[in-house]
Amino acid sequence: MTEFSIIEKYFKPLTNDNIAARNLADDVAKISLKKNEELVVSKDMFVEGVHFLAGDGGFKIASKLLRTNLSDLAAAGAKPLYYSLGFTKNKNCDKKFLKDFCRGLQEVQNEFGLCLIGGDTVSSQEMFFSITIFGSIKKAKILSRNQAKDGDLIFVSGNIGDAALGLKIKLGEDFLNLKKLDKKEKNYLLQRHFFPIPRITLGIKLLEKNLSNCAIDISDGLLADLRHICKESQVDAEIYLEKIPFSSTVQKLSNSQKLDLLSGGDDYELLFAIKPRDQNKLFDLAKSLKLNLSCIGNFKKPANTKSAINLRDAKNKKIPIKKFGYEHF
Amino acid sequence: MTEFSIIEKYFKPLTNDNIAARNLADDVAKISLKKNEELVVSKDMFVEGVHFLAGDGGFKIASKLLRTNLSDLAAAGAKPLYYSLGFTKNKNCDKKFLKDFCRGLQEVQNEFGLCLIGGDTVSSQEMFFSITIFGSIKKAKILSRNQAKDGDLIFVSGNIGDAALGLKIKLGEDFLNLKKLDKKEKNYLLQRHFFPIPRITLGIKLLEKNLSNCAIDISDGLLADLRHICKESQVDAEIYLEKIPFSSTVQKLSNSQKLDLLSGGDDYELLFAIKPRDQNKLFDLAKSLKLNLSCIGNFKKPANTKSAINLRDAKNKKIPIKKFGYEHF
Repeated sequence: MTEFSIIEKYFKPLTNDNIAARNLADDVAKISLKKNEELVVSKDMFVEGVHFLAGDGGFKIASKLLRTNLSDLAAAGAKPLYYSLGFTKNKNCDKKFLKDFCRGLQEVQNEFGLCLIGGDTVSSQEMFFSITIFGSIKKAKILSRNQAKDGDLIFVSGNIGDAALGLKIKLGEDFLNLKKLDKKEKNYLLQRHFFPIPRITLGIKLLEKNLSNCAIDISDGLLADLRHICKESQVDAEIYLEKIPFSSTVQKLSNSQKLDLLSGGDDYELLFAIKPRDQNKLFDLAKSLKLNLSCIGNFKKPANTKSAINLRDAKNKKIPIKKFGYEHF
Repeated sequence: MTEFSIIEKYFKPLTNDNIAARNLADDVAKISLKKNEELVVSKDMFVEGVHFLAGDGGFKIASKLLRTNLSDLAAAGAKPLYYSLGFTKNKNCDKKFLKDFCRGLQEVQNEFGLCLIGGDTVSSQEMFFSITIFGSIKKAKILSRNQAKDGDLIFVSGNIGDAALGLKIKLGEDFLNLKKLDKKEKNYLLQRHFFPIPRITLGIKLLEKNLSNCAIDISDGLLADLRHICKESQVDAEIYLEKIPFSSTVQKLSNSQKLDLLSGGDDYELLFAIKPRDQNKLFDLAKSLKLNLSCIGNFKKPANTKSAINLRDAKNKKIPIKKFGYEHF
């Protein structure tokens, strides 16, 4: 398969004939915006051995690649439009891989309403991918990390820690009780690791209903990503281990194991700030989205110049935090 | 150096405090367009051992990375605005490399008036980079590959083959006469390999003056890129080896060596179509840009359904083409 036959056969169908892709015939795509719209852009790199294993297979790799990029749009409150794909072909990339990879992309495209508009294909030793994703927001309406204020409540969507636990299962790590889990539980956790759910509608609704202008998606770990908000907003955070939402499987673990999962990352849930007066409106939203939204604490004025997170147990005692999250290097 | 200290120290200064970069504090950048503007986007991957050698050093790698991406904008006739950078850190990436790399980006930014607005940093075994570049055009005014018509003249900017010859020098390849070149000539060719000149102003002016709506930048080889236009426009091309512009150094080579360079790539000159009646206006433009623009032949109706390039010698005899250009795999 040559570069051009791969583009023709596998990638062109992913454009859905959208005009922005210009039939993948030129090196550039062309994006128009409606009046009062702005474009939101995010770029991610996805490297074999770091973000995925070649053995995960094309379908799972592609699905996670696009889902995690969509999560960046969710954290900004943007509506997905397009993406560009940087694709490397190495010895593991045969016809089956390509077919599965594109099926993975197509499924996520269909679910979230976006399409491919361009990219680049190269050969390399390692397998790695890069996606640049594009979404739209109404002018000057965006969720940011620097908008948390003293007194705001801290909410998270869904459950925390499932994906990090799923990774441990995938890697066969010896994590207490993991071997005792039944097959159904293990499958659930693996699903959560391979197929994160970008909280696109939640992000859009938080902006639309003026409930929040401060959010982040939890990719490196709840504690690490909360710390990003604290740093950018210059606030401290008080959070309570008992209030953090865990699935019934994670709930069985010890506190120290749960703590480990708080810095595990890969949750792709949204963490966001709202005013206490908006709590009821938020619970209405949670109901209409059929999505669990949990208050895990609140932001407050910083005790000193360095922003801090105070994690407390059921007795209001501070739990020391040894690790905040995943660092790329 | 942690991921965040690298972003803070090395990458943040490259944003020029542009509002689109949002201080690199969030995962997303935000792009606004003026009324009647559209956004042009291109993405390139740049892999160690394929597009550069680690030994080239940070300055040259970064400069070429950004210059070649700018060339995609030039081929569309777009004005550069921003870029996002996918950056990998491996064992070769020390403080000196990073400093040189960012100096290379800064120099190109200054020359072409664009800035960094976001990206991603990861660690990996191989060194590779990805750039997504953004430019603006006036609505519905864009240079494309599919607009060449029967009778249009084929022009190229600058000289062809210098960069491919520069690569042979860098790799120490045994190419006839190369060893006879003096130091000045070798340096000139190496410069042409390391520092291509994206023809941004030419692209913009071709559109502005309604001289062309069909162009491509020569990255894979003159013949390969001309063939892209032929295929997308469904035309044949008649070109003449004698008319192809070569530097005095390349001019010394034999015809078969010159032919080799026509599929060498890395020229980053523009190849474009104009109507014969516009030739004088084009020569005025060439004069004002102080840039050599050469007519190398013309497009014509296709002889059959498969688009063809006829390359002719001084006696109008067809020269067989064995290789068109570089293929990524």
